[in-house]
Amino acid sequence: MSDQERISRFGHVELRELPEDLQVRVGAIAERSGFVPNVFRALGRRPAELRAFLDYHDALMERSDGLSRAERELVVVATSAANHCTYCVVAHGAILRVRTKDPHIADLVANNPHAVELPARERAIVDLALRLATASATLTDRDLDAARQGGLTDDEIWDVGAITALFAMSNRLAHLTALRPNPEFFLMGRLPKG
Amino acid sequence: MSDQERISRFGHVELRELPEDLQVRVGAIAERSGFVPNVFRALGRRPAELRAFLDYHDALMERSDGLSRAERELVVVATSAANHCTYCVVAHGAILRVRTKDPHIADLVANNPHAVELPARERAIVDLALRLATASATLTDRDLDAARQGGLTDDEIWDVGAITALFAMSNRLAHLTALRPNPEFFLMGRLPKG
Amino acid sequence: MSDQERISRFGHVELRELPEDLQVRVGAIAERSGFVPNVFRALGRRPAELRAFLDYHDALMERSDGLSRAERELVVVATSAANHCTYCVVAHGAILRVRTKDPHIADLVANNPHAVELPARERAIVDLALRLATASATLTDRDLDAARQGGLTDDEIWDVGAITALFAMSNRLAHLTALRPNPEFFLMGRLPKG
Amino acid sequence: MSDQERISRFGHVELRELPEDLQVRVGAIAERSGFVPNVFRALGRRPAELRAFLDYHDALMERSDGLSRAERELVVVATSAANHCTYCVVAHGAILRVRTKDPHIADLVANNPHAVELPARERAIVDLALRLATASATLTDRDLDAARQGGLTDDEIWDVGAITALFAMSNRLAHLTALRPNPEFFLMGRLPKG
Amino acid sequence: MSDQERISRFGHVELRELPEDLQVRVGAIAERSGFVPNVFRALGRRPAELRAFLDYHDALMERSDGLSRAERELVVVATSAANHCTYCVVAHGAILRVRTKDPHIADLVANNPHAVELPARERAIVDLALRLATASATLTDRDLDAARQGGLTDDEIWDVGAITALFAMSNRLAHLTALRPNPEFFLMGRLPKG
Amino acid sequence: MSDQERISRFGHVELRELPEDLQVRVGAIAERSGFVPNVFRALGRRPAELRAFLDYHDALMERSDGLSRAERELVVVATSAANHCTYCVVAHGAILRVRTKDPHIADLVANNPHAVELPARERAIVDLALRLATASATLTDRDLDAARQGGLTDDEIWDVGAITALFAMSNRLAHLTALRPNPEFFLMGRLPKG
Repeated sequence: MSDQERISRFGHVELRELPEDLQVRVGAIAERSGFVPNVFRALGRRPAELRAFLDYHDALMERSDGLSRAERELVVVATSAANHCTYCVVAHGAILRVRTKDPHIADLVANNPHAVELPARERAIVDLALRLATASATLTDRDLDAARQGGLTDDEIWDVGAITALFAMSNRLAHLTALRPNPEFFLMGRLPKG
Repeated sequence: MSDQERISRFGHVELRELPEDLQVRVGAIAERSGFVPNVFRALGRRPAELRAFLDYHDALMERSDGLSRAERELVVVATSAANHCTYCVVAHGAILRVRTKDPHIADLVANNPHAVELPARERAIVDLALRLATASATLTDRDLDAARQGGLTDDEIWDVGAITALFAMSNRLAHLTALRPNPEFFLMGRLPKG
Repeated sequence: MSDQERISRFGHVELRELPEDLQVRVGAIAERSGFVPNVFRALGRRPAELRAFLDYHDALMERSDGLSRAERELVVVATSAANHCTYCVVAHGAILRVRTKDPHIADLVANNPHAVELPARERAIVDLALRLATASATLTDRDLDAARQGGLTDDEIWDVGAITALFAMSNRLAHLTALRPNPEFFLMGRLPKG
Repeated sequence: MSDQERISRFGHVELRELPEDLQVRVGAIAERSGFVPNVFRALGRRPAELRAFLDYHDALMERSDGLSRAERELVVVATSAANHCTYCVVAHGAILRVRTKDPHIADLVANNPHAVELPARERAIVDLALRLATASATLTDRDLDAARQGGLTDDEIWDVGAITALFAMSNRLAHLTALRPNPEFFLMGRLPKG
Repeated sequence: MSDQERISRFGHVELRELPEDLQVRVGAIAERSGFVPNVFRALGRRPAELRAFLDYHDALMERSDGLSRAERELVVVATSAANHCTYCVVAHGAILRVRTKDPHIADLVANNPHAVELPARERAIVDLALRLATASATLTDRDLDAARQGGLTDDEIWDVGAITALFAMSNRLAHLTALRPNPEFFLMGRLPKG
Repeated sequence: MSDQERISRFGHVELRELPEDLQVRVGAIAERSGFVPNVFRALGRRPAELRAFLDYHDALMERSDGLSRAERELVVVATSAANHCTYCVVAHGAILRVRTKDPHIADLVANNPHAVELPARERAIVDLALRLATASATLTDRDLDAARQGGLTDDEIWDVGAITALFAMSNRLAHLTALRPNPEFFLMGRLPKG
């Protein structure tokens, strides 16, 4: 029903057009994924911004302690769903399916992050993310206490909050650019391996 | 991440436990689909309500004139997305994929019905549906005129409005019962036939 | 201040123009009321939809067990007030006055269903209805527990929820059609009998 | 369904307990109405505030030029409906019925001020009132221009705005005190004279 | 960045153009402040309204018992911030700084009244004010109980509520007139005396 | 009224505790400002995140072409006001005063970014920022066209959007940490030089 040509309202660059350091960095991602995620082609118009974006992303999404990788993706999907960001839900929904090996969880979280049934720790993670994504001005110590009661350490609370904040930015960049998800994301993690 | 046992907060009935007329009717659907959609197992506790629900559904979703089948499903997915109804988005998203043979459209509409790029007629359909789903008290003649300018006849406007209204009901029944989508829906229409 | 001619944006049919089964059915209502409620004249353009509407209505509003008749009308008035549906508040406000023999209750509920002082059971009924009418996506088990603490059985909770859902539909149909209340409703139940 | 004893959360005073000037002033209103409107009994606890309230009310509601008396009451009912203030809708709805000799207009405006069909001038009045009542921070010159196009002079625009502002206050005082409408208001203006 | 000439959308009057009693009254304020606050120049077009406004203001803001002067200004700043009223925040923020001798409190309250850290009694005052300013229709006894637990007497609760209501009016008058703050207010109370 | 000791809910680090590259970088800012802005002390707990934050900030706020420095700060103040972020409004309001040499503009924008009178180009900047800050999911080509009509190039639109997105993140980090503004910010740019 919709034409799939345009990637971004502001045009895009191809991998080979990026500065060399970004070619290496985005190239490594492309190799793992099998394609260049469109966010890098759209943000690549402004290399300094893409570089900072990647740095921030890696600092939060690839930390080895605290939240698990799957939990970090859960924050992204819940936040992006609350913000109605199609690109981020589709792309990170795919990663969440891969990380959890659960082919349904991303759709359940994306359609209704407020009410999806989750174990207590994950519920606490999602509740905090939704609060900060949609009503951060009224966040109080009570919200942090609820997260602690859900089993989060203060460092994990920072992770949830900072990832939510990062995607408050990413979601808006995707809306600004009308960013299209790569077709490959839609099916990723939905089929049993083998 | 979530246990998939419970179908509804209020329990459910199996096909064989339904009154005979409903067994025949729901049985036919199950045969086409390959499984009994959970909504019928959950509403089956109250046969008179399920019967009226099916009648209303068929009167609107299986009309032969006016909106196409795909357009009717588009209304359902947009409305259900606006209402954050997981069951209806997952189930009718599957049907929308099947009807349109487009494996991506349901996810694009569901994640952001407000901004998904659509041809003018479909945009007019979705705009009217969203208006009535989320702010019906302020609907005015201007909204209907916009739909007419998008190419809809008055009978088609009624269809869009009535389907939106029907799913205002269905979505709330799904939320009331915490209705779970059947696992089969998630993958339906995502893979090329053959 | 407003012209009272037009009943619906989409025109209407008179009783004699309905299919025979609906003539009998709506005729019986008209006999009891003394007039044909406009909703039937407006929906009568589409007999199959009117038939399903009446079936659904009767299945929920004329059940003999569970909620009392007055309580069912209370749900309708509170829901329709939350949705700002003039037709439904005026028509069912009239029925609520008749059922409760209280000439004020409908106006009190309609003007502010959130804060009207009610006995605990009725408060629980209205709270659940408002929740489902206006924010169903965030309904949780806690809302159902609150209803249970207000004295509702699970079957009564279903009734409240399903009636609220039915009027989520009716209210939107009334908004779609700009449905006018019959003049007779406004005064009904306001004067002492005798 | 609700006990009708308490008038205000903060108690009330009777006419005879008011300072003499207020006895005269409220007494004259009571003579015209046939009863002491509860707002004066509730605010009478603080005579200086009641005096200022009456002064402000009279300065705006009893001006002889500009808006008609009926139009002033229309502003009050629309504003109070938007604020869900039961006391003010019931009391001023009664006055609106009396002023317009239209037994239905108050209920139509109160249930849905946004969509009630009104002549262009009255629509412009209500639109401006609703804008200022519910979203005054985003009022712009465009809103005033729309009012001018609806036929309002600048002095009439001030009237609409100032009456809306006065009832932004009154509605909140009624909510603060949980003010009950006098039973007499409910039927006033609903029956033909004779 | 913005031209500072126009005081109000509806023009204004100078002190000498006011009726004599208002010249005396506003003159006294001007003498204390060193300038005529613009609100009096804008409202002065309608002397009866300005008189009632001053009476109401004095009845609530200059009471000698109950809330302290600083607490009354705290209510005004929190309410006006919730309503995004620039004039009232700038003018009463200045007075709050003067009353509290705290050069920062007004900005902290104005930017985020919901989350600014305050002692328990002040928190209770602000919470009640925000509730009534932004969602008065759903105010319940629980809100008043919370205020009592914060240390407020019922008379102080009335003060908070009535001041909030008064500024629900004032804020809307300022929005109606696009009222400009006098330049003198911005710096008042920000510098140490001496 | 509030104790000014705690800078962040999660503690903070001093300049000398930062990694050397950050000491140099933040030290240069501190030298220019006369103090270490608290945001760097709070984010300094996580050097990799602070580094990416500074990179992103500089890439957007210190570009030499497109929006002027003052315009970039205008975006920050408007966005942060819409998000009720006290730290960002106070800190960047100070910078906006310095950049514009206008002691009032920051307070006018912060109190009501929606209605503050601004020249057409600045109005277009603020409108786009507010749209993306508070309702990015419904951003359409029409919003971008409005920005173009206000005189913005596509590159300037990207700037406005990306700065808004960056502060969607910053504002949430400030809310997460309950970040306190340094006292020095409050008075900066309010007094004439000399």
